Amino acid sequence: MNKLRAREHGIQFGSMETGRNNAIIDVYGVGVGHSTLIEGDSIRTGVTSIVPHDGNLFEKKVVAAVDLFNAYGKSTGLPQIMFEGVLESPIMLTETLNTWRVADAVLDYYVERLKYSPWSMNVVIGETNGMYLTDNLRRNIGKKHVFEAIDVARSPSGREKVPEGNVGGGTPMIGYGFKGGIGTSSRIGEDFTVGVLVQLNCGGRGDLLISGVPVGRELVLAEKPPNPLGNSIMMIVATDLSMDSRQLWKVAKRAALGLARTGSFGGNSSGDFTIAFTTSKNDPKNKQGDSFLNPVYKATVEATEEAIINALFNAETLTGVNNRTVEALPIEQVKKILNKYGR
Amino acid sequence: MNKLRAREHGIQFGSMETGRNNAIIDVYGVGVGHSTLIEGDSIRTGVTSIVPHDGNLFEKKVVAAVDLFNAYGKSTGLPQIMFEGVLESPIMLTETLNTWRVADAVLDYYVERLKYSPWSMNVVIGETNGMYLTDNLRRNIGKKHVFEAIDVARSPSGREKVPEGNVGGGTPMIGYGFKGGIGTSSRIGEDFTVGVLVQLNCGGRGDLLISGVPVGRELVLAEKPPNPLGNSIMMIVATDLSMDSRQLWKVAKRAALGLARTGSFGGNSSGDFTIAFTTSKNDPKNKQGDSFLNPVYKATVEATEEAIINALFNAETLTGVNNRTVEALPIEQVKKILNKYGR
Amino acid sequence: MNKLRAREHGIQFGSMETGRNNAIIDVYGVGVGHSTLIEGDSIRTGVTSIVPHDGNLFEKKVVAAVDLFNAYGKSTGLPQIMFEGVLESPIMLTETLNTWRVADAVLDYYVERLKYSPWSMNVVIGETNGMYLTDNLRRNIGKKHVFEAIDVARSPSGREKVPEGNVGGGTPMIGYGFKGGIGTSSRIGEDFTVGVLVQLNCGGRGDLLISGVPVGRELVLAEKPPNPLGNSIMMIVATDLSMDSRQLWKVAKRAALGLARTGSFGGNSSGDFTIAFTTSKNDPKNKQGDSFLNPVYKATVEATEEAIINALFNAETLTGVNNRTVEALPIEQVKKILNKYGR
Amino acid sequence: MNKLRAREHGIQFGSMETGRNNAIIDVYGVGVGHSTLIEGDSIRTGVTSIVPHDGNLFEKKVVAAVDLFNAYGKSTGLPQIMFEGVLESPIMLTETLNTWRVADAVLDYYVERLKYSPWSMNVVIGETNGMYLTDNLRRNIGKKHVFEAIDVARSPSGREKVPEGNVGGGTPMIGYGFKGGIGTSSRIGEDFTVGVLVQLNCGGRGDLLISGVPVGRELVLAEKPPNPLGNSIMMIVATDLSMDSRQLWKVAKRAALGLARTGSFGGNSSGDFTIAFTTSKNDPKNKQGDSFLNPVYKATVEATEEAIINALFNAETLTGVNNRTVEALPIEQVKKILNKYGR
Repeated sequence: MNKLRAREHGIQFGSMETGRNNAIIDVYGVGVGHSTLIEGDSIRTGVTSIVPHDGNLFEKKVVAAVDLFNAYGKSTGLPQIMFEGVLESPIMLTETLNTWRVADAVLDYYVERLKYSPWSMNVVIGETNGMYLTDNLRRNIGKKHVFEAIDVARSPSGREKVPEGNVGGGTPMIGYGFKGGIGTSSRIGEDFTVGVLVQLNCGGRGDLLISGVPVGRELVLAEKPPNPLGNSIMMIVATDLSMDSRQLWKVAKRAALGLARTGSFGGNSSGDFTIAFTTSKNDPKNKQGDSFLNPVYKATVEATEEAIINALFNAETLTGVNNRTVEALPIEQVKKILNKYGR
Repeated sequence: MNKLRAREHGIQFGSMETGRNNAIIDVYGVGVGHSTLIEGDSIRTGVTSIVPHDGNLFEKKVVAAVDLFNAYGKSTGLPQIMFEGVLESPIMLTETLNTWRVADAVLDYYVERLKYSPWSMNVVIGETNGMYLTDNLRRNIGKKHVFEAIDVARSPSGREKVPEGNVGGGTPMIGYGFKGGIGTSSRIGEDFTVGVLVQLNCGGRGDLLISGVPVGRELVLAEKPPNPLGNSIMMIVATDLSMDSRQLWKVAKRAALGLARTGSFGGNSSGDFTIAFTTSKNDPKNKQGDSFLNPVYKATVEATEEAIINALFNAETLTGVNNRTVEALPIEQVKKILNKYGR
Repeated sequence: MNKLRAREHGIQFGSMETGRNNAIIDVYGVGVGHSTLIEGDSIRTGVTSIVPHDGNLFEKKVVAAVDLFNAYGKSTGLPQIMFEGVLESPIMLTETLNTWRVADAVLDYYVERLKYSPWSMNVVIGETNGMYLTDNLRRNIGKKHVFEAIDVARSPSGREKVPEGNVGGGTPMIGYGFKGGIGTSSRIGEDFTVGVLVQLNCGGRGDLLISGVPVGRELVLAEKPPNPLGNSIMMIVATDLSMDSRQLWKVAKRAALGLARTGSFGGNSSGDFTIAFTTSKNDPKNKQGDSFLNPVYKATVEATEEAIINALFNAETLTGVNNRTVEALPIEQVKKILNKYGR
Repeated sequence: MNKLRAREHGIQFGSMETGRNNAIIDVYGVGVGHSTLIEGDSIRTGVTSIVPHDGNLFEKKVVAAVDLFNAYGKSTGLPQIMFEGVLESPIMLTETLNTWRVADAVLDYYVERLKYSPWSMNVVIGETNGMYLTDNLRRNIGKKHVFEAIDVARSPSGREKVPEGNVGGGTPMIGYGFKGGIGTSSRIGEDFTVGVLVQLNCGGRGDLLISGVPVGRELVLAEKPPNPLGNSIMMIVATDLSMDSRQLWKVAKRAALGLARTGSFGGNSSGDFTIAFTTSKNDPKNKQGDSFLNPVYKATVEATEEAIINALFNAETLTGVNNRTVEALPIEQVKKILNKYGR
């Protein structure tokens, strides 16, 4: 798993500086935990947790927002975020049909791990469909995996490094016809950090753009790429800048622009969802306009584009249910194409 | 349970004619099934299923729409309806913390009962919070109850009568400080039927209006009414008129006006959701404007108002967890007040 | 014009206390100005201005929000309020086809009266259709009337009294088949004031409810009521409580509930728009939830209901274009009906 | 004005085939007309009309939809399209402060040219801010220019060719720091045509991407680019495929993805609006899902990207108010950069 990230190959995405880890955890306090389940020939699944802080989110909610670019998907908890403007539970990313078991287990986490009995809880689950590589009707993700993912996310190790590719909720996912999954990136502005994490499961091979280069069109490959139904992407945007939920919603909308730069046209059965939150505890200022958000928008576009490509660079070829295989992005061939195109 | 419905007491709601059963099942093909769970001192819960037809909804989707009047709530499946404009699963109503177990069991229903393996499924669950009367953290609703509710809804008996009050998802619910739960009503127009079913769990006692009369303000009662957190209402609107999802969304928005006529101001932690569907299989006409919808709007307002009051008239006093009791609406006293106000 | 307002006849709307004037100007700083144009046989029109303060709004914007309950209408400036969350110009209410001339004249007001050259300006005009009583294609409202309305609104007299009925933008309007127009009301809570002003031009006669009594159904009248196309209502909500635009949007949504209590079902070609603003200059608090808004919601519902009925009580019978007459609400008969219904 | 379009320089945008004119008029029946006003040193403005057919749109409405990606702007008529799903007037594009005069003149067009007296009319105006090159407070666009633009759009010549660059509403506009304005492109699918027309006035120079190449970053230029406030883009999408307004809304959302591919991050005071319509008179099919839209989405992304770059390739250096000059894109230098990047 010692693959290099896209930027380590010299590929550039926009012009802003990255954070120290070039990952969502560069936003101070944010943690990420994965639980990956690979069993026998047919189970290739998992769950990922993203937390804005290591406390009890139900008691210390954070300002949040949601953008539905193409809401084909089963995510839970999004309508309440739109109206209340806060996140009160960890964000979990998993495989479509596990959505509800994962949601139920998040409640168990509060009761059993935090010894806390919420009178209600707006549990937030994002999902993409992994049926091509995993036997998804079996819904294997339960309390054990959910607890592990949240535990890691809330621990110091969840703030040190974010594994990418075939991990957690990203385990069986496919991006642009290649092995996809989890990817992350970050950007730093004068007075803020933006971090993005994606669970990439969308795109047609011919459409792939890397740093603007039509790699998907140029690649010459033996096998026909998989084209499963229900490909989607979950995009999580974190920042530490103080803003209200409406402003954060406008930030969330920019993630779709980053997705566009990797070649997607937003396929109809692709659930293209963005959830954004800020870790800032300050009151948002009643400013005369939102132009202070411009660098945050730019950071979000760039970090989303790079997070998606990072997912492709770090995912590895995987064989799963029904003996199906999804190949990793052929990095050497990609580098030749990028070279031909002057990068 | 031989209580009379509001109309049988001579109370009038609007001016349109009701359907034969004055219930959502007056829309041909629509079925309703309840599974009620009352166990020991602390479990007072259940689940209700509403189906547009008795077939496989995933294969025979119906046009649908959603209105989020106040989206404080954990309902699942709503974003996809907004984008795709169709319903592909039964609508289930239950208690908040059972939401995810019920959703998961709907998938089991397809696999086990219908022998159908969906590659994905946008399961639609509505919920209101029953914690005042039931030990909700125990999440007792499972496959058994979900299967029972859907089985009934899809059977001939689910098309014959709709039990109201403390049944199914409505079992522990509270409306305007009295025992609430399930209520239903319908209206007939020249070329259409509209049916509404509600799971009533919202409202403050002092606010209750019945047919415009400030009953809540006039009632003199010994005990202080319960005022639990998280009171909400789910409103389901069915019609047989052909229309597209945008038009149906405008119909759905009118349910909140019916709610307003019973006195609610849309409390902040009240999830006031409406899901609407049409059973029509005809293509919607590309008309020059939507004014044909006016009688459908009026029918929706009237049927929603009456469904809410029906829930109150049919619910019975119930004692539940922690020995708490919620009283039924004192119908004789209410009738005296209505009389004083000229009804 | 010495007509009594609804409350002066002893009619009750909800349970909260009104402000000193029972008008939108009870929100400190808010001013209202009308310019009414009645000429010859066929011109019955005007324009109304509502300002949050008497300064330059483009330089001192206020937090604002919009609810589109039924966006059949030509209002300008609403999309930008939804995204930027601020109001930067006076709110003007007029007759549909004057919308654009009024908007253009608001810019002139800044340039000529305020000696201010905005590089852009999100001018906010609300409209309802007065074609039944005025020759609307002539679009008679110009700079003179716009300047007059804003001048009054920004002057001390605009803070002292709000004329209702056939004034300003309300001049030719019709409500529930009777003469409608401008109405206003207010409510006071522990730490806030809410004021509402409406330009009433919607509703069918049979649907009218006054304080819950089906007055429309009970009235026995000789003539057939007018039923022009394109009836609508503009609802303006002002408050002095500090909140952000998302919270204010939720407040705005409650105005439709007040409308519902007067009998409207939201007719399809009725533009039912609400614009809300707060005069507070404080930063909104980053609270853990919005339940502090509950009394504001209730105040909004009550004040909207009363403002609508005030429009009907204060409007006078008017004859206009094509010799058409719209009768005022027959107050004595209404009082008898209310009496019969125990009020 | 014999400039070549981007594609004539050999630049590729996506993989789909263009229509015969590579312009929005490739959608049968659609017409475009410009009226350009260049006077003295300080007036550089105009208006553009796009019509779905040459008849009376108020009587023969077409299915339409709107996407608000970033609704900082003064466009009129958009809320009603969202609710009614139809377009009933020509779409006009102009300079911000002319918006209301243009709207008013469209009504005159119906009355005077079409001898038609509409009882109401949802006039649709899009605008971007041209103040850098034109003395915008003078609002020079009146009936004469509006009539000319609509007349041309409804005439055979409006269906033959679409002038690009400094014409009509695009006259004073700026794109990515270079002279912008009007651009158009089209794509053909198996059973449909999609055409896009933009009025380009947004973007920072450093952000410009052409066919994925970071041209903005690579260009070495003497002068500092202009950076006026309020840059925006209006995107008009036409198709001939039968669909309902909700489906068309999803198509409209894809235009923002095409914009993203040219480098924009959606600046905060950029009004990024899309209006889409279909010329099809067929009833939309009540399909089991919208996946038939995928090629339409792709066509929209590609045509939007190309239309934007066409605006830059066709606009010419222009000097306007206050002796300000905006340079045209330096095409020879751009071609060298594209060459370096392997195009």
